[in-house]
Amino acid sequence: MEIVIIGTGNTASVLGRKFKEAGHRIVQVFGRNKTAASELANVLAAEHTDRWNKIKEADLYLLAVSDTAIEEVMSKLNLNEKTIVHTAASVSKDVLKNARHYGVFYPLQSLRKEATGLPEIPLLIDASDEKTLHLLKELANSISEKMKVVDDEERVKLHLAAVFSNNFVNHLYVMTEKYCVQEGVDFRLLLPLIKETANRLDVFSPSQAQTGPAIRCDTETIHKHLAALKAYPQWKALYTLFTESIQKER
Amino acid sequence: MEIVIIGTGNTASVLGRKFKEAGHRIVQVFGRNKTAASELANVLAAEHTDRWNKIKEADLYLLAVSDTAIEEVMSKLNLNEKTIVHTAASVSKDVLKNARHYGVFYPLQSLRKEATGLPEIPLLIDASDEKTLHLLKELANSISEKMKVVDDEERVKLHLAAVFSNNFVNHLYVMTEKYCVQEGVDFRLLLPLIKETANRLDVFSPSQAQTGPAIRCDTETIHKHLAALKAYPQWKALYTLFTESIQKER
Repeated sequence: MEIVIIGTGNTASVLGRKFKEAGHRIVQVFGRNKTAASELANVLAAEHTDRWNKIKEADLYLLAVSDTAIEEVMSKLNLNEKTIVHTAASVSKDVLKNARHYGVFYPLQSLRKEATGLPEIPLLIDASDEKTLHLLKELANSISEKMKVVDDEERVKLHLAAVFSNNFVNHLYVMTEKYCVQEGVDFRLLLPLIKETANRLDVFSPSQAQTGPAIRCDTETIHKHLAALKAYPQWKALYTLFTESIQKER
Repeated sequence: MEIVIIGTGNTASVLGRKFKEAGHRIVQVFGRNKTAASELANVLAAEHTDRWNKIKEADLYLLAVSDTAIEEVMSKLNLNEKTIVHTAASVSKDVLKNARHYGVFYPLQSLRKEATGLPEIPLLIDASDEKTLHLLKELANSISEKMKVVDDEERVKLHLAAVFSNNFVNHLYVMTEKYCVQEGVDFRLLLPLIKETANRLDVFSPSQAQTGPAIRCDTETIHKHLAALKAYPQWKALYTLFTESIQKER
């Protein structure tokens, strides 16, 4: 497939590399920041431009820009006869409805352009019509083993679920690391446990995997922990909230 | 090393298998539940007993019982001339002080006897004297590449950190799964993201890895999410708390 990528951020960069790996041709990278566009184009063996009127012909235009920029970028593109998709979780596909064919190609993964290895990327796709859906399915299958057709509403739900299990989980890591630094214990000793907690979900459902003082109502340990958190009111509130919530879900 | 294991739970079972794999001899398994003791002994090619007065000679007695049982079990053992360690996070090593040599051999990992593969297990050790410390260091090094000598207080702190980054994280997975089931979207689509979030800590510190609507103050998405959580007051409270906490830590 011949693809033009609009955007130069994490999504543009990682999907671009996945496409190239799978044998697609990246015709061109468009970026308002010329240096960023040139750098990404270089990695993808593509041409690049920062001019709206220099965008080339392609089978698919991947609009990988920030949620708030999608509408504006769409209005500046003169691609109404083409197939255009965006990559945003919480933006309706209909924001692209001036194009003849349009859809969504949303990667349900946390993408970083600095990453050397590329993670597995489940793709949530949607399209204005059967022909476009077929095209997007083919593209998705060429770079991932996990693909699902979901509408705007389901995509928001899965993004919300991702916020809980990625952003909020990572925030717990942030809090834990700060606590460890302040108390002079080594956060990195926890990495095997953190990985085991995630990897175990291949085999157990999270409710089967729940362990710790809260679920076994070990009041003595809970009191020791709250005492150890005396100097950390924010942590202590979180500890109490989680302990209660875990006990409520038993 | 010749080892007697007191207890038949997850810790007894997993550490027992690690010891055996490393070439140590498990002399005997003691368990008040005869069936459980016999089953574990079978896996470890050891003898077993449920009688306090039938416990055999060994270089080390590993007391892998629940926190609250340690004192009682210690009082029933007639091993005051021996080397005894417990495996508990939040119990002082001095609960064993009637023994000539004693210490702690705490695995900072979530252990499940059902697991087929054994995870990497960082070990936090402590001992009453140099000779015992040396013995425990050797034992720890034989089954793990991560070992650290920490006192009672540091061990509690690391356990508390583990509660945040394992028990609380897993509770977020529980909540996410329940939400997905109730909304009819597929929780398992999130597994690659969940794993990436954990594995990324090898390369990035968690504060560098924080992404999502909260950290980029994406009010529009946050409002969409809160609307999607209308029927879930408990989730909504958690969402607001995390969003505020993430923004406070920016």
